[in-house]
Amino acid sequence: MISDWMDSVESDIARISAHPYAGTPVGDVLDWAACSKGKRIRPILLILCSLYGPNCLAHKNRLTLLAAMMEVTHLASLIHDDIVDEAPFRRDRESVQRRFGKDAAVYAGDYLIARVQYYQAQENLHEAGMLLADAIQQMCAGEIGQARCRYREDVTMQEYLCNIRGKTTALFRASCRIGALESGCSKEVIEQLDRLGESLGCMFQFRDDLLDFTTDKEVLGKETHKDFRDGIYTMPVLMAMRDPLAREQLLPIMRRNRDGQTDCEQIKKMETIVHKYGGVENTKKEILRYRKRCEEILKMLPANAASAELGKIVRKCAQV
Amino acid sequence: MISDWMDSVESDIARISAHPYAGTPVGDVLDWAACSKGKRIRPILLILCSLYGPNCLAHKNRLTLLAAMMEVTHLASLIHDDIVDEAPFRRDRESVQRRFGKDAAVYAGDYLIARVQYYQAQENLHEAGMLLADAIQQMCAGEIGQARCRYREDVTMQEYLCNIRGKTTALFRASCRIGALESGCSKEVIEQLDRLGESLGCMFQFRDDLLDFTTDKEVLGKETHKDFRDGIYTMPVLMAMRDPLAREQLLPIMRRNRDGQTDCEQIKKMETIVHKYGGVENTKKEILRYRKRCEEILKMLPANAASAELGKIVRKCAQV
Repeated sequence: MISDWMDSVESDIARISAHPYAGTPVGDVLDWAACSKGKRIRPILLILCSLYGPNCLAHKNRLTLLAAMMEVTHLASLIHDDIVDEAPFRRDRESVQRRFGKDAAVYAGDYLIARVQYYQAQENLHEAGMLLADAIQQMCAGEIGQARCRYREDVTMQEYLCNIRGKTTALFRASCRIGALESGCSKEVIEQLDRLGESLGCMFQFRDDLLDFTTDKEVLGKETHKDFRDGIYTMPVLMAMRDPLAREQLLPIMRRNRDGQTDCEQIKKMETIVHKYGGVENTKKEILRYRKRCEEILKMLPANAASAELGKIVRKCAQV
Repeated sequence: MISDWMDSVESDIARISAHPYAGTPVGDVLDWAACSKGKRIRPILLILCSLYGPNCLAHKNRLTLLAAMMEVTHLASLIHDDIVDEAPFRRDRESVQRRFGKDAAVYAGDYLIARVQYYQAQENLHEAGMLLADAIQQMCAGEIGQARCRYREDVTMQEYLCNIRGKTTALFRASCRIGALESGCSKEVIEQLDRLGESLGCMFQFRDDLLDFTTDKEVLGKETHKDFRDGIYTMPVLMAMRDPLAREQLLPIMRRNRDGQTDCEQIKKMETIVHKYGGVENTKKEILRYRKRCEEILKMLPANAASAELGKIVRKCAQV
């Protein structure tokens, strides 16, 4: 059932990403920017949450468009992420900035955001538009917050959580909330699905941060510990840092890192310390705690085809 | 009269740029991003054009908000420009990217765009929202087009004009059109003000490009010929290039420039050639031609307080 909805979402993503510059150098950039295809988790969440509402079929066109807007917003944010990270690849393809330069990438991201803005105006989106814009603001604030924490050896777990609530969780929450709202769910169900989106988003980010410590470079498909090298200290590191002995050993590595003196040996040493002092184990525990939270929310919701699918997503995001 | 309107626009700019992060590192970035104050030419145009419509007073709140949205959009684009240009200063203050880093600057620009998007949804803007989003798309396409033309010795005048129509003119046109539309102007007046915006925008950019060739570094307040050094060949250069003798002398300089071998001597040589072969003179003529076009449009419009102010802006933009 969901696959039929997602076909419409794909058409809407193509419609939003369309441009009148085919066959020009501008068109080449915009084509490249738009054709990156991810797992579509945000639009899937929006559609699944909408299935709880009585008006989901009546509002199908609007819902698939909203799901597509969510994905294109996410896509634009990835393009801007890659500029900041100077990432050469994104999903096995050259990043926009690597292929066409930083300047083209900044404006390619902005172009996609403007396309979302256009459809927002065309479709007279009011509450959903405000929710989406608000989520983007939170996402930007989270990214700025993360940037301001870089290389800070005294960064706290609270700061980390605050940053990921913005940079990752906000769009997950907005996807769930907008799906529920626009299909006419009750206030109670809207709040439950909002909470589900929040817990899922956090879990998704914890797992992403954990992968650096549990996966080989070959499997991960990217350089490991890029976050650490960039001075972004994530949950496994911060969990380990709670132990004074780990802290004592990690601080000199973090200081060398800040001074640009990180080599493979230092990274391996850091990884060993994080494992030894429970950074990995405690992050896994945290993921399982959030999985439980998600499952409790799902139990409170009516059992239907959507809840079975959401359950699968929860289990997938909790695989550690 | 206009100053009363502009006070309201300033309040609306402050309202759009507001954020809930006061006193935090994120708030510091967002404050810095928002407090750059330019000449406000886009909101002034929007308000002046709205004065031709019968509903301008009735829709005053909506019009000043739209004018503010136009300015904040422009502000966001400047922040992203400065990342691309790695500009250290903007309007006598450190640029966001210089002060807080490239990553904070990307997301500070995105944050401001999301704030505009929020108000667009809140105020249920339909046609004006679509016009604004469309103008931003054109602006991005113009910037990408310019990026793709960099260091190309065979870049044409047509390509240059196409790029500036996007990067500069689109927002000028949208300002005029939205002001006219939302105040209830006739179709004919809307089209005339749209054309005025387009001519003014072009003239504004031609003059900006000319300043590099007619103003000392001290007066200009920034490094001269940054565009040329960055491989962006503007109207004075392209006008001179029409002469085969100039072309022959400029090509070796452009090639050295592409290879990163530009020094002050080369820049001086380039400037002398551009002057000698009419690049400056012909750009001035082009500006005057556009000034005439603007004045003809103004003559066709009803004479009122707004047309006198618009005439002043036209003359100011044509000062060469």
